[in-house]
Amino acid sequence: MPLLVMKFGGTSVATPDRIRRVAKRVGVEVSKGYDVIVIVSAMAGETNKLVGLVNETSPLFDAREYDAVVSSGENVTAGLMALTLQEMDVPARSWQGWQVPLRTTDIHAAARIVEIPTENITAKFAEGMQVAVIAGFQGIAPDGRITTLGRGGSDTTAVAFAAAFDAERCDIYTDVDGVYTTDPRICEKARKLDKIAFEEMLELASAGAKVLQTRSVELAMRYNVKLRVLSSFDEMDDAAGTLVCGEEEIMELNVVSGVAYSRDEAKMTLISVADRPGIAAAIFGPLSTAGVNVDMIVQNISEEGRTDMTFSCPTDQVKRAEKAISDAKASGAINYHDIVADTGVAKVSVVGIGMRSHAGVAAKMFKVLSDEGINIKVITTSEIKISVLIDRKYMELAVQALHDAFELEKAG
Amino acid sequence: MPLLVMKFGGTSVATPDRIRRVAKRVGVEVSKGYDVIVIVSAMAGETNKLVGLVNETSPLFDAREYDAVVSSGENVTAGLMALTLQEMDVPARSWQGWQVPLRTTDIHAAARIVEIPTENITAKFAEGMQVAVIAGFQGIAPDGRITTLGRGGSDTTAVAFAAAFDAERCDIYTDVDGVYTTDPRICEKARKLDKIAFEEMLELASAGAKVLQTRSVELAMRYNVKLRVLSSFDEMDDAAGTLVCGEEEIMELNVVSGVAYSRDEAKMTLISVADRPGIAAAIFGPLSTAGVNVDMIVQNISEEGRTDMTFSCPTDQVKRAEKAISDAKASGAINYHDIVADTGVAKVSVVGIGMRSHAGVAAKMFKVLSDEGINIKVITTSEIKISVLIDRKYMELAVQALHDAFELEKAG
Repeated sequence: MPLLVMKFGGTSVATPDRIRRVAKRVGVEVSKGYDVIVIVSAMAGETNKLVGLVNETSPLFDAREYDAVVSSGENVTAGLMALTLQEMDVPARSWQGWQVPLRTTDIHAAARIVEIPTENITAKFAEGMQVAVIAGFQGIAPDGRITTLGRGGSDTTAVAFAAAFDAERCDIYTDVDGVYTTDPRICEKARKLDKIAFEEMLELASAGAKVLQTRSVELAMRYNVKLRVLSSFDEMDDAAGTLVCGEEEIMELNVVSGVAYSRDEAKMTLISVADRPGIAAAIFGPLSTAGVNVDMIVQNISEEGRTDMTFSCPTDQVKRAEKAISDAKASGAINYHDIVADTGVAKVSVVGIGMRSHAGVAAKMFKVLSDEGINIKVITTSEIKISVLIDRKYMELAVQALHDAFELEKAG
Repeated sequence: MPLLVMKFGGTSVATPDRIRRVAKRVGVEVSKGYDVIVIVSAMAGETNKLVGLVNETSPLFDAREYDAVVSSGENVTAGLMALTLQEMDVPARSWQGWQVPLRTTDIHAAARIVEIPTENITAKFAEGMQVAVIAGFQGIAPDGRITTLGRGGSDTTAVAFAAAFDAERCDIYTDVDGVYTTDPRICEKARKLDKIAFEEMLELASAGAKVLQTRSVELAMRYNVKLRVLSSFDEMDDAAGTLVCGEEEIMELNVVSGVAYSRDEAKMTLISVADRPGIAAAIFGPLSTAGVNVDMIVQNISEEGRTDMTFSCPTDQVKRAEKAISDAKASGAINYHDIVADTGVAKVSVVGIGMRSHAGVAAKMFKVLSDEGINIKVITTSEIKISVLIDRKYMELAVQALHDAFELEKAG
């Protein structure tokens, strides 16, 4: 029997009525002849409530107890979804993570999936069950304690099940109707994409687009799981949403598929660093140890043995970065005249697999920004992405201008 | 190391603040040198909320999914309690039912405990853990699915752990400060008992006093677990509450220990039943099959081959009882002229182990009621209890008069 994985996020299962509504979608796929594995999140607001209780109880919590508490929201939804399907005469039952068992590492609150045995659930399908409902976001560590996969982990659960059961497709139902060329809230010409390649999706996610958890896309790419993002609030339609898939399934690759942005960036500059071989390691080693997520890095041309080193990191890590750097100076590992943090910046990126074979995308991007009078502070590029750091006040303007210039409102 | 079991009900763990307050009590016992097993209920209101969601989703629910949903409330409290104790530098961790594993029968929503292996938790105590926090009310069936023990099941969980770990005592913290000679809400002279025998407690519970789940008292009696009922809202005091224990530990047994009542009773009478050997079985067999909990039974003296048969059952089972009886008549199994239900009655009982060796308690009870002009409709007696059915409007009066007559306001 062909098998589908369908994942429903918190807003899609926020009330018994909404659960009924999405259960009908599951029923339609069952009536088409699919076995279905449904992955559910906690009802909207529940996980935040539980996280709040944990933080109120113990600000520096034991992550093992955190996991035991916050995983309970998904258990509730899984049982209610199974009951709803049974009410529709669809044979269904629920599994909690430890019942599958979905085995993970023991990194609590951020565990990685190790193994999903399929025998147990496959046997139930063989006995006539048509839907297996799985509590998302959770698993079990080698020592038998409950783990969670990090926020958004239910997307990863869904893709992992799709890979383990060789599903025909993994449909991620959410409150947006797909992946857009850019954020419709800041660019009204934004267009929904019918298809996007895994790598583009990854670069968009890392550049600030938050439709899917990055890990779920990585996992889908590794196991070549066809991933569809669609809204549970729209009419059912087989062509709805955006298909995230291997680039070989996309006929004509876009030079640029989307424009992403991130407000949450700070630029830090170490002025007049004493330059020597190994200086980059001496700076970024301590930052990594301190848990600072450094994104972009630029080093000026060295003059007379001194250079300026600039990097970006999330705004809320600036204090931590400053401490790590000044500690490194105090220990004699590095030497610089001053450290300057600029928290008034934003990152804007253009992403597209077609860039690989099309020259001139970067030049065009820089010209568009220049024509708008926007100064570029830092540039980084990957094979399929160009990112720039600019003053935050120009962010919306930059996104709109780039969206126009690359004609993203037109279907590729 | 001596071991205590402490159980906290829903109102005692209703908020993080209240959890902190009761965790301090646990800390005090730890500092006295006890290993402690803490059993927690769901935060007040949570289980009702979950039961409501299940009923809204599926009125005739699959009890296996019901269990998966409603057990989640206790998991939250268990994690929060462990975190709270850790914050107080008391080494603690939580266990969910399946992690112990607390093995039960597969009668979902009303499972019975089969086994509690102790190795796992004992090993952690040996490693330096001082408190094991257990999610009450839940276990695991032989097929690996989650079960629950029925409402109030956390009391039973607590006693079962106390028996399995040979605890010095099992303290049940609740929102009342002990067991009273009668309900203080209807008799202001009601007095808290320092000690009560298991069998008295059982008879009081079956007669309507709702301090402890009946099964937990049965279990405590079977394994001779010393059970203390006390309030989590009072100052700590080793002599607080009421100790429920074997009668050999009570120096001077009371003739009457308490007066209990139940409003929730209906009297049903089958008029002019054709009497023959086996007629009682023919009537009460079908009632049992229909799930009617028959309490008191009285049969009049048979005249000319016909008799009246009277029994009592909970008010909300009257319809079901009438149907079972009229079905039995239609099938020819029994024959009667009429069936009369009286839902305006109440049961009042006096309970006391000393009754066994004191004659005249029943006679005194009947005289007290007669002096107040209260007509007795049905009488039943056990070795240590006398129950009567009376008009409900006289219930408070009867309780107060009996409490006075047996001088229950005076310490025994």
